[in-house]
Amino acid sequence: MSNPTAAMLVIGDEILSGRTRDANMHHLAGQLTEAGIDLREVRVVSDDAPAIISAVKALSAAYDTVFTSGGIGPTHDDITADCIAAAFDDHIDVRDDARALLAAHYAKTGSELNEARLRMARIPDSATLIDNPVSVAPGFTVQNVHVMAGVPSVFQAMVATVLPTLTGGAPLMSRTLRIDRGEGDIAGPLGALAAEFSDLSIGSYPFQKDGKFGANIVMRGTDEARLETALSQLETLFAE
Amino acid sequence: MSNPTAAMLVIGDEILSGRTRDANMHHLAGQLTEAGIDLREVRVVSDDAPAIISAVKALSAAYDTVFTSGGIGPTHDDITADCIAAAFDDHIDVRDDARALLAAHYAKTGSELNEARLRMARIPDSATLIDNPVSVAPGFTVQNVHVMAGVPSVFQAMVATVLPTLTGGAPLMSRTLRIDRGEGDIAGPLGALAAEFSDLSIGSYPFQKDGKFGANIVMRGTDEARLETALSQLETLFAE
Repeated sequence: MSNPTAAMLVIGDEILSGRTRDANMHHLAGQLTEAGIDLREVRVVSDDAPAIISAVKALSAAYDTVFTSGGIGPTHDDITADCIAAAFDDHIDVRDDARALLAAHYAKTGSELNEARLRMARIPDSATLIDNPVSVAPGFTVQNVHVMAGVPSVFQAMVATVLPTLTGGAPLMSRTLRIDRGEGDIAGPLGALAAEFSDLSIGSYPFQKDGKFGANIVMRGTDEARLETALSQLETLFAE
Repeated sequence: MSNPTAAMLVIGDEILSGRTRDANMHHLAGQLTEAGIDLREVRVVSDDAPAIISAVKALSAAYDTVFTSGGIGPTHDDITADCIAAAFDDHIDVRDDARALLAAHYAKTGSELNEARLRMARIPDSATLIDNPVSVAPGFTVQNVHVMAGVPSVFQAMVATVLPTLTGGAPLMSRTLRIDRGEGDIAGPLGALAAEFSDLSIGSYPFQKDGKFGANIVMRGTDEARLETALSQLETLFAE
């Protein structure tokens, strides 16, 4: 497939400790698939500067677009913005445009624009801001890296802002057939079908339910007619 | 913290396409935290040999222990075992001990040990097998990498087998306080507290609920008395 490629970097101790279940990966994966952008890799790292910097560099070099989530709030453990600046050898400080957004917002809500909140205006010099319609503090883009909040409602709003600015490929369509037989029974003919339809991506995702094994066969591609042909051959192969 | 470190590699297109939500990461994260093993990084890659091989090499070199999930079934897209062998320059073929396990199982269930199912007996020469009490086809360990199935019930059974063989550190305990104020209001005093209790890991995990912002403050450490002291200072700081 020649669709553009993307990676995601999730920043946060809370996922690695098992305290919370990440929701942003699943959301972004679905959005990118619809947009015809091929999510190739996700990494989850802790709130640790060397780990964040090295992951940002590696992913930015390897993929067309990178999305990060988490670590851009006002607390001491929010170190993402400084890490992004370090990864790109960029200068970072409180920036006037971001400060103005926060000042206007807090003037309206009657909260103080204190030192902690001002941390959220720390933006690398070369970055463009990403609008945050939920809680104002902006995300930002440096080169091919889009830096977004970890709170799901804010993350989703930022994804909605960024996605239309990216050039997608042909949207990937899929067809799924559930087969209530163990993978071992179907793997031979399925492999032959996958070889015949090498322009499609055909995956077998096994499950176990009530003590019985089965598999969902998912076929993906950009050509609907090919998908339909493959699906009908698959149905014929594994007719009950 | 001087606890042993771990990483996880999730192998599977289905998560990157947004089709399924990964469940194994969350399970493993919780189990490792209880065992006093510090999960530092998770990567999710697609069913792509170069991507799997390079991730296995990088994680195996960087962390004490690596767990993989997915891609060890009988279908054409199950390429994990061959990738592990390639990553460690090991030879791989159907191995007699694994074949014997499968043969006994399928003789009992009356299924045929066909070519596809025999793929599940492809095990690198240097590997030791991981027992699979759910569906027999074994996982395996090569050096510091534990290779396990992606089906959650099987993954969990294999984790239960492997974990007791690992040397853990002091179990990480945690205390959580929910504060119904925006992070910007609490970040200053919280940062000072985190600096005072630098032997603890103190994280702030913001949430938004019914249009209001709040944060869960999670403190982690191996010394229960220190955690209680920090918690009571935190409660005093942010008493309503």
